Formats: sequence, structure tokens, C-alpha cells
Amino acid sequence: MKRFQDKKWKEEMKITFDYNHMMSEFVGDEGIEWSQLEALEPTLKKASLAMIEKRKAGQMRWRELPYNQEEIVRDILDTASGIKDRFDNFVVLGIGGSALGPIAVQQALNHMFYNELPKEQRGGCPRLYVIDNVDPQRMKELFDIIDVEKTMFNVITKSGSTSETMAQFLIVTRLLKEKMGDSYRDHIIATTDQEKGSLIQIARDEGFKTYYIPEGVGGRFSELSPVGLLAAAVCGIDIEEMLAGAAYMDEIASQPDPYKNPAYMAATLQYLAMKAGKNISVMMPYVDSLKYMADWYAQLWAESLGKRYDLEGNEVFVGQTPVKALGVTDQHSQVQLYTEGPFDKVITFLGVKEYKCKVEIPKGFENHPAVSFLAGHTLNELIHAEQMATEYALLKAKRLNRTITLPEVNPFTIGQLLYFLEVETAFAGELMGIDAFDQPGVEEGKNATYALLGRPGYEEKKEELDSRPKKNSKYIL
Amino acid sequence: MKRFQDKKWKEEMKITFDYNHMMSEFVGDEGIEWSQLEALEPTLKKASLAMIEKRKAGQMRWRELPYNQEEIVRDILDTASGIKDRFDNFVVLGIGGSALGPIAVQQALNHMFYNELPKEQRGGCPRLYVIDNVDPQRMKELFDIIDVEKTMFNVITKSGSTSETMAQFLIVTRLLKEKMGDSYRDHIIATTDQEKGSLIQIARDEGFKTYYIPEGVGGRFSELSPVGLLAAAVCGIDIEEMLAGAAYMDEIASQPDPYKNPAYMAATLQYLAMKAGKNISVMMPYVDSLKYMADWYAQLWAESLGKRYDLEGNEVFVGQTPVKALGVTDQHSQVQLYTEGPFDKVITFLGVKEYKCKVEIPKGFENHPAVSFLAGHTLNELIHAEQMATEYALLKAKRLNRTITLPEVNPFTIGQLLYFLEVETAFAGELMGIDAFDQPGVEEGKNATYALLGRPGYEEKKEELDSRPKKNSKYIL
Repeated sequence: MKRFQDKKWKEEMKITFDYNHMMSEFVGDEGIEWSQLEALEPTLKKASLAMIEKRKAGQMRWRELPYNQEEIVRDILDTASGIKDRFDNFVVLGIGGSALGPIAVQQALNHMFYNELPKEQRGGCPRLYVIDNVDPQRMKELFDIIDVEKTMFNVITKSGSTSETMAQFLIVTRLLKEKMGDSYRDHIIATTDQEKGSLIQIARDEGFKTYYIPEGVGGRFSELSPVGLLAAAVCGIDIEEMLAGAAYMDEIASQPDPYKNPAYMAATLQYLAMKAGKNISVMMPYVDSLKYMADWYAQLWAESLGKRYDLEGNEVFVGQTPVKALGVTDQHSQVQLYTEGPFDKVITFLGVKEYKCKVEIPKGFENHPAVSFLAGHTLNELIHAEQMATEYALLKAKRLNRTITLPEVNPFTIGQLLYFLEVETAFAGELMGIDAFDQPGVEEGKNATYALLGRPGYEEKKEELDSRPKKNSKYIL
Repeated sequence: MKRFQDKKWKEEMKITFDYNHMMSEFVGDEGIEWSQLEALEPTLKKASLAMIEKRKAGQMRWRELPYNQEEIVRDILDTASGIKDRFDNFVVLGIGGSALGPIAVQQALNHMFYNELPKEQRGGCPRLYVIDNVDPQRMKELFDIIDVEKTMFNVITKSGSTSETMAQFLIVTRLLKEKMGDSYRDHIIATTDQEKGSLIQIARDEGFKTYYIPEGVGGRFSELSPVGLLAAAVCGIDIEEMLAGAAYMDEIASQPDPYKNPAYMAATLQYLAMKAGKNISVMMPYVDSLKYMADWYAQLWAESLGKRYDLEGNEVFVGQTPVKALGVTDQHSQVQLYTEGPFDKVITFLGVKEYKCKVEIPKGFENHPAVSFLAGHTLNELIHAEQMATEYALLKAKRLNRTITLPEVNPFTIGQLLYFLEVETAFAGELMGIDAFDQPGVEEGKNATYALLGRPGYEEKKEELDSRPKKNSKYIL
């Protein structure tokens, strides 16, 4: 039996959401009144119903990912085990939703210096690189450290035509073909839409191994699809446990009553905070391994909720700007602002009950009280004390803050966390009355790029660009 | 002759500041009117004078770092060359201002995968690790990849008693002593205040090599002191050129007229934007190697300007929250929000004219127009086009944005950039009428940490903490 099949273990591994310091009882006028929650009940009921209906209507297919992938998981585990035997490196070519999840999960669940370990200490798994930009230096220098003949490339693009990813794909396929001719195809796995876009057609023509991003699962909600599962499995992460964690959170986060449903409550509080002018949402893990969760969340929250129009077509210009921080590191960078600056943010701590290991602070230099008081404690105690101290400092300064606590960092709790934040985001979208699943605002930039690079069909956009107001040289110093 | 002694080369390497898209002529009502700048002239004159006076009075000693370190630089270069011969790893133990600069400069000027290169491809230089947190897992796992007998540790703390750094120091010294007895002291360099704090006393007692953080140079303004110079020199970066770049920018950024002084103008525009409710400052490099510059800047901007009181003691709660983004990556994460969300931010692009190398996008799959239009271009053209396209999309959406352009990334331009942002920050502080050089808001958290760990002298704070309002279990889900 796997541990995630044990009910008791699962309950011990439940993540918790603590919102005491969002409430006016604790932070005073800046906080949220219980009566505000009560007054919102009709809206909450409506949103809660909409969540059920949209799910039934197949408009939130990402919610089914914990349940409908048994066969795919088997296939991924097979593939991963073949890759372990044959390759030293696994390189993800992808951007945005195709990159942030794989990075966050790898950082959370593997060794902090994974790529620098010898292969046997990586459990025989390949190194992982996620190349999520088209900076020429980064692309070129990647080839200084990997032997492409020992590398598997996973090209991920939902649309099948993301310019950045397809440019990388052209570079990599040319290089592979030069080195190994037709067998180059054994070095590429394509993860894309099952029907649409260039990549699936190319993959079929060339005979690449493929995985599909299910229809109706947007990029930023795709980490629990093959987008994230393949890279994780290749690096030895237990993806079945991760999906079980997501399923466990689904039970919790499907409860219609927001007073019982932590994801709904989390969204509700953010919604009220936004209404009160808190336009910034800081995510501050007190765990190094969760640092990139804040990056993943930043996309989820920003792209889902940053919207010009509501569902009725009114111009609303809404959205809360996500900020990534890291405890304790950013106590020495951002906390001055958080405690003394404007009352414009909500801070969400991510904490753990138990770190992966314990490190003792030994005695030494005992005639220096500013140092010696640390001796006899552990780093675990120190980082816990600092998290509590920062929470306290924010409380005293009347700053809204809340804490998500993982009993420990493991695939089950990471699955829960991902799913929790996805449901929180979707529910916040409902409350705000916007479409949390589109991203119309990125089209302008895409089209302008096509025009600038002379893509056929974008001549008109090119003319528009050419006729944009000329810059004034007096404004350039 | 070194290239930075050549006037023509220096002028070619001048970084530029483009603020066209901050102005109402371009972005409409959200923008800044020329008349607003004119109306501000008395304030600008006053601030400009204060900058001169404070510098003269020795209140901005970081401004002299490009000039007064000749001897120190010689010493650092000597030390660095000795380290290269004897050590495989150079580990910085520091946090905040002692870490963010070294990370940013290393990322900017060395190979993108520096630590993974074989030693000869690192020019014989050691690997660099900056351990800026007390997460037990990170500390423990560091020792999985370094051999401490082949490692030089650089302990950096200005106060000489930063808990996080001193905890690391205790762990490392114990480990070194166990392995090599008294000669452990050859593995530690202390960078700290010349007189104050525990570290300098310990260093003298134990006979460590030391460097000083000059009096009056705060942590976040210390990158051009030995804090940043030693790690950079050890990793083969030309620190003389970096200081020359800073000196060059000092000439430019000392001009009293803000219409000629890009750092003053930059600060002035941010000041007006803040007044108009733009409480978020996004820094978005379109260069992977400048990614961590945004982290360094985030500390500088947040800690300097996030203040509760102005210089006259009025409660003001000011500050603009820095946000780190990366082009093009975050086009697929944040730009939806930036173009469609609230009008609450200023976006600063960091661009380059020339990347370190050119990467061609080869032909292939020519029956797929969504892919083949890329062929024949370079990644350089693609990333440049995307930067321009994003700038255009923001312009169309009437979002304030500005661009700092480096002719290329090299020590001279990085020195300029650091100094530019430091002067911008100081001048913004003048305009806001606050003290940009203190950080009183971090004391509460520090003291609470001491209390929680039972440091003698903090019993009262412990009582205060113990009597804080108990959390309500109904607010924990």
C-alpha cells in the first residue's frame, strides 16, 4: 500500500490555512469584519453554485486531472524509466505555464543543488533544465554544459505555435539532426494539444513521442497534466502521490460552504482586500524549496485575475499584482516596506511544520552574547522563530497577513498546494465576475512581434507600428 | 591601457534612460505633463542641493567608493588570485545587502551555468555559492556538493552580529575545525565593520583575513565595496572596470540639472507617479543575465523608500513596491495584468543593444507558417522584437513605462547601472522628504526573534509576545 492510500496519514498531511491576521479583531481597521463576510453571503452562494455548474459543464477541466489520468501516468512512468537509462539531461523547452510548474515542483521536491550532484546521488535520474526564455546567451551557453547526444528535449506548447518555444525547437532539431541524423527523433518528446497547432502535426510527421494537454486545460492550470508530470517523473518525483494530494484537496475545496472551504475563504478574503484597495499580493515562503511556488502562483494569479472587462463587458481594469518574496532572506530586503510602507498589500506566508532535515547550531565564541545565544538551537528553530517574528511585526504594524502551512514538503502536500491555489484563483474570478481562464491582453504583444519579424499576414499591424508616435529625443538621457 | 581609460570607448558604453512613455504626450491622461515637471522645479532644486551638501558632509559615503579603494582593490586582486590557486569553491555567507549584489553581478557577468562548467572553462576560478538563508535543508545540502577542505568562506555582515549569518558562521567554523584544526582560519574571510560588532573581534582573535565595509555605507549601498568586489574578483570579473563604470556614471549623475541627469529624472518621474497612485514599480530586464539585478534593485528601492515617518516626524506610510519580472518569460505570466489590470504601476525595462553572442534560428518545417516565419532570423532579433512589442502593447494600453539600455553587458556598464539606481533611489528619498538610508521597520522582527530564542536581555519582549492575542481556531481551516 502506498502511504497516500492511508486515511490517517493523509489527514496528518493536510495543509492548513490560517486567516486570523486578516480579521479586524487582530489588525484593526485595516482588517476584515466578520459582518463583511456575512453581508457577502449571497454573492458567495452564487459563486459557489457557479463553480459546481461550470465544472459540470466541462468549463474547468483542470479539476479532473487528479482523476482521469491513470493510463497517462502509467505511460509517463514507463517513458521516464526509459529516459533514466539513456539520458544524462532532460531539457524542457517551454515558457509561462509550460515552465513555471515544472520548475516549482522540481525545486520543491528534489535536492536544492540537484543538477550539481553526481548521477548516483540523483537516483540515476537525469539533470533537469527548463529553458523558458529566448535570450541568445542562455541558449548558447546551455550547449556548453550538455551533450545533446545524451539529452532528451521535451518541447511543450499548448497552442503548438508559441514563437519562443518553436524558435528553440528549430535550433535544437537542427543541432540534433546534424549530430545524429534521423535518430534525432528519439531525443524529442512533444507535449501539446491533441489536434490543433503546428507542433502536433510536426510530431506526427516526424514520429516523435507525444503527450497531450487536455482540451480546456489552460497553460497556467496545466501543471498536473503531462506538462508537469513528465519532468517530475523523469526526476524521480512520485507523481501518483502528487495527484493523490490534489484529489485530497479537491474534496476539501469542493465544499460549497466557504467557512469550511479554505480555498473559497482565501479567495473571499483577497476579494474583500482588493475592494479595500490592497492591490498587491505577496507570497512569502519560509522554505527555500518553495521559492519557485511563488513564481508559479504569480502567473496563476496575475493572468487569471488581471482583466480589463468583466463578464458583462464593463470596463473594470481589475487585478492584484503578485509579488514574490522569500523568508527569511527578504526580511533583509522587503519587510521594512511591508511594515512601514502603504497599507496596500496582503502577505501570504508559506510555512512548514517540519523541514526535511535538522541542522544544529553548535557552540562557539561564547564571550560574544550576540552570537552565543544562537548556540544550542537549530536552524529549524531559528527560521521558525523568524517566521513567527515577522508575522508578529506585521500584526503590530496592522498589516493583513495569512499563513498556509504544509506539515512537510512532499509530493502529497505539493499536490494539495497547487490545487488549493488553483481553486482559490478560480473562485476569486467568480467573485470578481471576470473570466479567470482567458488572457486577451497578451495578443497585442504577440501580433506586434509577428509584425516586427515580418510574418506574412501581419502587414497591417506592421503599418500600425511604423506609424506609432516617434519618440522625442529630449526624453532620452 | 585598459579599455575603460579610453574616452571614446566609455562614451560608446554609456547607458541611456528613455522616458518617452512616462509622458502624457504618449500615454495620455495617465502620463506626466511637462508642466508638472516645471511646477516641481523648486523642489528639484532643493533636492539637488541637498544631494551635494549631504555628500560633502559625509552622509553618502557610498558615492566615494569608485574613488577611494585603490589600495583595497590591489589587496582584493592579490587575495583573489591566491584563492583561485587553492580553492574549488567560494561561499558567501550573508543576507540582504551582503548577498543580493554578489548574486546580481555574478549572474550578469559570468557564464549562465558558471557553477556547472569544468574549472578550466571558469578560467580556473572557483564555483560561487551565496547562501542567503537559514533554511536547514539548503545548508545541509550545500555540504553534499562542496568539499569544505577545498572551500573558502566569506562571512559578510556589516553589524557583525546578523543572526542568520552568525548561525551559518557557527556551523561552518565547527565543521572546518573538525576537519582541519587550527588551519581552519585560512578558510574564512570576514567582511564587516572595522570597529563594531562581534565578527571583527572574533576575526582579530582568530586571525582571519578581513575586509571592511566602510563606515556610513549601508548594506544595500555596499555592492561596490569589498562586499561585492571580493566575490566578483574571485570569479574573474574585472572589478576595476566595474568601479570605472560607477565613476563614469557619477559624473553623469552628479549634474544638478535633472533635465540632464538621468538618475535625477528617473527619480523625479517615479516620485510624480507615486503621487498619482502608482504604488508598484516593476523592473523587467529583457536579458537573462540581468534577472538578479531586479532582486538587488528590489531591496534598494523597498528598504530605502518604504518609510512610516518623513524627516519632520510626520506619519506618511510611503513607498513603492518593487516587482521583479523577466522578459520575454513574464510576457507569458505578468503582461496580461500589466496591460489590462489597474493603472497602478510603472514598468522599467532593462535592455541591451548587443547580446553576448548571436544565435541563428535555422530553417525547418517550412510547410508550417506559424513556425517557418521565424527561420532566417536570430534569437537576438526575436527577443528585441518582443521587447519592442511589449513596450508598444503597454503604450497602447496607456501604461507608464521607461527603458534603461545598456550598450552591452560588461563590468563597465554594470558599474554604471548599479550607481545609476543608487543615485535614483537617494534622490527619490530627497524628493519624498524621508531618510533613504535607515531601516527602523526591521527592528521589531529582529527583537521578536531574539525573544523567541531566549536571548538574554529580551525577557520583556518575550512577555509582550506571550501576551499577544491568541489566535481563534475558527479562522484556521
